[in-house]
Amino acid sequence: MTADPARAAAPAGAARDATRGGGEGTSLTAAAVAHLVGGTVRAGDDGSAVVRRMAPLDRAGAEDLSFYARAKYAAVFAASRAGVVLVPPDLADAEGAPGAVRVIVERPHEAMLRVLPVLYRPAPREPGIHPTAIVGRGVTLGADVTVGPYAILGDGATLHDRAWVEAHVVLGAGSVVGADSHVHPHATLYPNTVLGQRVAIHSGVRLGSDGFGYVFADGQHRKIPHVGRCVVEDDVEIGANTTIDRGSIGDTVIGAGSRIDNLVHLGHNVRLGRLCLVMAQVGVSGSTTIEDGVIIAGQAGIQGHVTIGKGARIGGQAGILGDVPAGATYSGYPGRPHKESLRASAALFKLAGMTRALERLLAREPREQESTS
Amino acid sequence: MTADPARAAAPAGAARDATRGGGEGTSLTAAAVAHLVGGTVRAGDDGSAVVRRMAPLDRAGAEDLSFYARAKYAAVFAASRAGVVLVPPDLADAEGAPGAVRVIVERPHEAMLRVLPVLYRPAPREPGIHPTAIVGRGVTLGADVTVGPYAILGDGATLHDRAWVEAHVVLGAGSVVGADSHVHPHATLYPNTVLGQRVAIHSGVRLGSDGFGYVFADGQHRKIPHVGRCVVEDDVEIGANTTIDRGSIGDTVIGAGSRIDNLVHLGHNVRLGRLCLVMAQVGVSGSTTIEDGVIIAGQAGIQGHVTIGKGARIGGQAGILGDVPAGATYSGYPGRPHKESLRASAALFKLAGMTRALERLLAREPREQESTS
Amino acid sequence: MTADPARAAAPAGAARDATRGGGEGTSLTAAAVAHLVGGTVRAGDDGSAVVRRMAPLDRAGAEDLSFYARAKYAAVFAASRAGVVLVPPDLADAEGAPGAVRVIVERPHEAMLRVLPVLYRPAPREPGIHPTAIVGRGVTLGADVTVGPYAILGDGATLHDRAWVEAHVVLGAGSVVGADSHVHPHATLYPNTVLGQRVAIHSGVRLGSDGFGYVFADGQHRKIPHVGRCVVEDDVEIGANTTIDRGSIGDTVIGAGSRIDNLVHLGHNVRLGRLCLVMAQVGVSGSTTIEDGVIIAGQAGIQGHVTIGKGARIGGQAGILGDVPAGATYSGYPGRPHKESLRASAALFKLAGMTRALERLLAREPREQESTS
Repeated sequence: MTADPARAAAPAGAARDATRGGGEGTSLTAAAVAHLVGGTVRAGDDGSAVVRRMAPLDRAGAEDLSFYARAKYAAVFAASRAGVVLVPPDLADAEGAPGAVRVIVERPHEAMLRVLPVLYRPAPREPGIHPTAIVGRGVTLGADVTVGPYAILGDGATLHDRAWVEAHVVLGAGSVVGADSHVHPHATLYPNTVLGQRVAIHSGVRLGSDGFGYVFADGQHRKIPHVGRCVVEDDVEIGANTTIDRGSIGDTVIGAGSRIDNLVHLGHNVRLGRLCLVMAQVGVSGSTTIEDGVIIAGQAGIQGHVTIGKGARIGGQAGILGDVPAGATYSGYPGRPHKESLRASAALFKLAGMTRALERLLAREPREQESTS
Repeated sequence: MTADPARAAAPAGAARDATRGGGEGTSLTAAAVAHLVGGTVRAGDDGSAVVRRMAPLDRAGAEDLSFYARAKYAAVFAASRAGVVLVPPDLADAEGAPGAVRVIVERPHEAMLRVLPVLYRPAPREPGIHPTAIVGRGVTLGADVTVGPYAILGDGATLHDRAWVEAHVVLGAGSVVGADSHVHPHATLYPNTVLGQRVAIHSGVRLGSDGFGYVFADGQHRKIPHVGRCVVEDDVEIGANTTIDRGSIGDTVIGAGSRIDNLVHLGHNVRLGRLCLVMAQVGVSGSTTIEDGVIIAGQAGIQGHVTIGKGARIGGQAGILGDVPAGATYSGYPGRPHKESLRASAALFKLAGMTRALERLLAREPREQESTS
Repeated sequence: MTADPARAAAPAGAARDATRGGGEGTSLTAAAVAHLVGGTVRAGDDGSAVVRRMAPLDRAGAEDLSFYARAKYAAVFAASRAGVVLVPPDLADAEGAPGAVRVIVERPHEAMLRVLPVLYRPAPREPGIHPTAIVGRGVTLGADVTVGPYAILGDGATLHDRAWVEAHVVLGAGSVVGADSHVHPHATLYPNTVLGQRVAIHSGVRLGSDGFGYVFADGQHRKIPHVGRCVVEDDVEIGANTTIDRGSIGDTVIGAGSRIDNLVHLGHNVRLGRLCLVMAQVGVSGSTTIEDGVIIAGQAGIQGHVTIGKGARIGGQAGILGDVPAGATYSGYPGRPHKESLRASAALFKLAGMTRALERLLAREPREQESTS
């Protein structure tokens, strides 16, 4: 591996590393779209009409595919300039979208998901180690890996087959990137972090950073050494600028198939189960266990050392201070069963209107009035 | 463009790229300050006194300019060692700041804002592409652009005139940086992200990352391809480590003149209007529309698919679950008109003191007591 | 300093920079562990048993050291396969961990903290400037500093003895890194940021970014120039992706010995005292003063321009809108003394169950019922 100025100047893989989406140039006829989604072109419409990309009804043009799923959007549909529109049978002949060829299909929204990957082919990943990447001692590289410019592979790091490490990624010593996993630019894996297969780590994610653990002694907050790891199982996606600390003695573990949004914080020793959804800006304190299939809405906070049972749902901004039973839905602060939280906040606004009257009422029974201090 | 080790060792533009503020060396006389702000040096004071920088009253020294705007700070003013102080007419002869020359001016605080840019000239930006920057295929460069060390310009990226891309920035393929825009170190633009003119993107910002959109099928959370873009209009500033996802089909759009603070999350398809202020750690879920001139205070969270009307104000930590009318001020969780929220929380603390008495009262009418379950 | 492709290809210091923890290979006998913690090997147990790492009871194997501190974990202890276990005197002969040698010691958890640094020696830091690092004009380097690959030292930056600046760090012009301080990969110091001694800055931290300060004039939010600095005193640790803005005119200051977790935001001019603990995702608005020894739990938000008194405690997700007296514990939104907050939320759920009964009660006295509008 040598630093070849020529290649450095116009790097084959380099900028391509930073490529995703794109895939312009692909196009489909209305007939091809109908075939793809198992629908039919409306009788009399022109199946040869061509679309090149997808757009919402209000911004679609003659070469755009769009979809019209519910009558409530009739006004938008009426004014749409889309070239081809996916419509459900009951709206097949709805007024509007004068120029549009209609492809009739059940559940247009789902149908659209089948067209997207065809219209937008991700730019191909080009295997190779960019000459500016720095490869430490004893690094193991699988087949067809891609390592972007200025990436750093720490001593003893392992990249399995087709692993994709983009520009400026720093892999700490001893870290592992599983087969077909994709680490986006500027992510950091602290030493000994482990990623399974088909994992996606977005830009700015920090995995395996020191946990927030101190013991106050001799007049200072003395740091507890953190020797555990951060282990991410297969098929996990982690959003931009999220931070996950490594374990203190054991490991912090992210279960297979879980999806984590942006700016989330998971503390040391947290155990996130399989197939969980954790939305933006959620925070989970150390040593908490979250079982399989849990959904945590945005900005919720979960206390340390508690257990969130299988399939539980946590509401947005909820503050969970204790265990949550499997299957339960909790919300509010302090977190309570959602029904109770709803009733409490409804009651509060009612009671606010009754306060003075209640005070007057109680004023008549002075002896029973307790102090509010 | 060649990688010249010599230049790499002591790079002209390089470290200068990382320079901002600074501008030491500039100095002003008290008379010059007075002229600059449209004020006057107090009769008898020495207009030739020189200041080189600005400091608050309590930390200012003989060569520092400070300001004294309100009598409540009399004690601090009394002890100040500032060399020159901006004072309003009514405080022109107030006791204190023995050694200070006084410049009399209406609204000293605003006056100070006119002096700052003169005392602190930002270090000049030096046009040029650092030899270590990596320029992809088909990149378009305007006049006098600056590209810092180790920056990566993805295939087909466009930098307009005087665009400034600092060290370690990664511009995805097809992304655009408008004229006079400034991207700080370590920011990431995912492919096809678009910045208008005079935009400032701070360190660690991630623009155009994948939205958090999945469909549960075949026992897994299957990812919905995101093919929209993140579009930032003119005169926007975005704070450190903020994340803005790109659109799913349409675009995520940040309106002209809006200012976004640090660690904010804006989900896919969000439409932020013009001249909005979004404070630190705010989170906005997908497909929500925020109209012009909205102000959202720190840590507030806004539900997806709602509309925040023009000029509305959202309180700190508010949890907004539905639409907010134009001009309204909402706060609390669940978000309500601010007056209602205030009254409710005031009532709560009153009622807390009455609870036992009310229980006794109701205990006397057993038949009407409903269960609390 | 020359860019030697050979070294760049297999860089001595390079990947090692990214190394921490690790230190495999060290091992201790049970007797050595006992000696280290001032305990004793249980009579009859084999003091020559060897351990190489530490693990929790449930995952420990024959070569792992673990600890058993409280009877509540009896079940886990019973099934443990640990090779050596630290136990308190009263549990010395507890049933379980058949294969385990027991080391008897008071407070096994604290004892473990004395063993950790011996079992896990941090990889040695190798002094030197990596050939790919870019060193600006007039940079001052102390003795034995380590600068990782692709790091950038802005013009006039200063690194004191044994300072460690890891891969991809960007130090702005005029910034200072104190002796024995450690800046992890991808951190950014804006110009003129100052770090004291023994400071640890984690990956993705942004120090000294522009404060969120604007004046609305001429139909736009005009930026207030920020000319203050971000000053971090000795023995501070700052967690991953945290952002701290620099001061507007004065400085933003982080007091000695304070510990800040991940994804925290501290606004311009904030003064954090000594020995504070600030947990993940906390946000503090501009110009607020936090005195010594304050503890702020996760996701709490603190208003600008207020003072949090010495030794105060702020609860998780609390919203603090005013001053907090020294030593007080505040929680809830709006933040109140913790006792009041607890009583209020308890009362709320009680009252929710009484609402209808109270309405009926008041219905009998129509004239006194006030409107709820």
